[in-house]
Amino acid sequence: MSKKPSLYTSLSPALLHLYDISNSVVVVIDILRATSTITTALYNGAKEVIPVDSVSRCIEIGKHVSGITAGERDGKIAEGLSYGNSPFEYPEEFIKGKTLVLTTTNGTKLLHMALDKGAKEIIIGAFTNLSSVCNHLLEMKKDVMLACAAWKDRVNLEDTLFAGAVVSKVKEHFDINCDSSHMAESLYNVGKSDLYEFLKSNDASHYHRLTGFGLEKDIRYCLTEDVADILPVYIDGKLIIE
Amino acid sequence: MSKKPSLYTSLSPALLHLYDISNSVVVVIDILRATSTITTALYNGAKEVIPVDSVSRCIEIGKHVSGITAGERDGKIAEGLSYGNSPFEYPEEFIKGKTLVLTTTNGTKLLHMALDKGAKEIIIGAFTNLSSVCNHLLEMKKDVMLACAAWKDRVNLEDTLFAGAVVSKVKEHFDINCDSSHMAESLYNVGKSDLYEFLKSNDASHYHRLTGFGLEKDIRYCLTEDVADILPVYIDGKLIIE
Repeated sequence: MSKKPSLYTSLSPALLHLYDISNSVVVVIDILRATSTITTALYNGAKEVIPVDSVSRCIEIGKHVSGITAGERDGKIAEGLSYGNSPFEYPEEFIKGKTLVLTTTNGTKLLHMALDKGAKEIIIGAFTNLSSVCNHLLEMKKDVMLACAAWKDRVNLEDTLFAGAVVSKVKEHFDINCDSSHMAESLYNVGKSDLYEFLKSNDASHYHRLTGFGLEKDIRYCLTEDVADILPVYIDGKLIIE
Repeated sequence: MSKKPSLYTSLSPALLHLYDISNSVVVVIDILRATSTITTALYNGAKEVIPVDSVSRCIEIGKHVSGITAGERDGKIAEGLSYGNSPFEYPEEFIKGKTLVLTTTNGTKLLHMALDKGAKEIIIGAFTNLSSVCNHLLEMKKDVMLACAAWKDRVNLEDTLFAGAVVSKVKEHFDINCDSSHMAESLYNVGKSDLYEFLKSNDASHYHRLTGFGLEKDIRYCLTEDVADILPVYIDGKLIIE
């Protein structure tokens, strides 16, 4: 019997250095809202999404590629950018064929860390494309790192829940010697019947922050499975559907 | 109404730097088995426990204080030391009145980090002294950091479960804006009816490692609430009952 590939979960970018990911498919997870919005934009026909780590770089690249610049700081569109972080800002009639240059702090930082550590492949995961992520991992049969973007390196509930959702769907096919993965799955099993209610009842910090900005609708969407079920892959600085 | 003190959980020493603990009571948590053994030795009458981070230092200090040297590497008593990490090695008839010099890697490292970061007070927490820890935190009315020792910085299930046990018992009296704390409590609520079975069914890495060494009895003991219900406090390099 051949050995199963391994699966690990890193609950924060500050823990990623503990793992050798040079032979791994890394799933970048930033549920509220970067990876949910990226999958949605691509699902709705965006040509590509370019993730960048600062507003100034977003403006610069936006000009260079004639793209749509997007990003928020403290719940408002950042000065100099045109759009925000909500998946609802990117319907097909608006985004189709366009390049979205998106600045996100936690997710982009994590993606670059994974690149620096020589990840075999980097893909984007969210509840919105859960099935595509799981199917890809099962097809690849390679080691997997579920990498949560967290919030300023602090572990968060929604990214952990998504890691747990993936674990629950693919675990038979992987060797999982990783408490974080088992914890994530256990939490997902508790919360899966109503993830929104689970975030709320656990007083999740992002739930608080975003509802403070009136974004309940965004949260509900970002917790909905397979509503934008495509697979974004990071290739040469861009996220595209492979 | 006066503001409640804050409570945070750091799931790994690699996350502790994210928090300001200069006004906090830090609870050092290393369930399998350092903090369980420390509470047990003190409960059984040890004069003090000196935690050290290396075998050589353990030998050196052991000579200096005429203490009992203890510590394991890979499940065996480390060369040059006299005893191991099991709480069952320290019954009253053996340990009463003596100084135990204990080398633990994860727990001692964490304790020194907390010291370096200027923690207000450092105490030792385990299921074996859960009530004493909770009562102390409720009496102090200060900010709290539940600091998990983890395993080589990787998050582990048993330390997280203990953090969750504390959260579940004190949460009404603290302001908890920390997803790790809520996650820990949620996991504890799932597992609390049979923590041993929960570790086993979640394939916890430490459960695996220790049962491989024939230590099921140790694990069961380390998951038993209040069997050594005293409060070890770190003062001037030593853990004592205050």
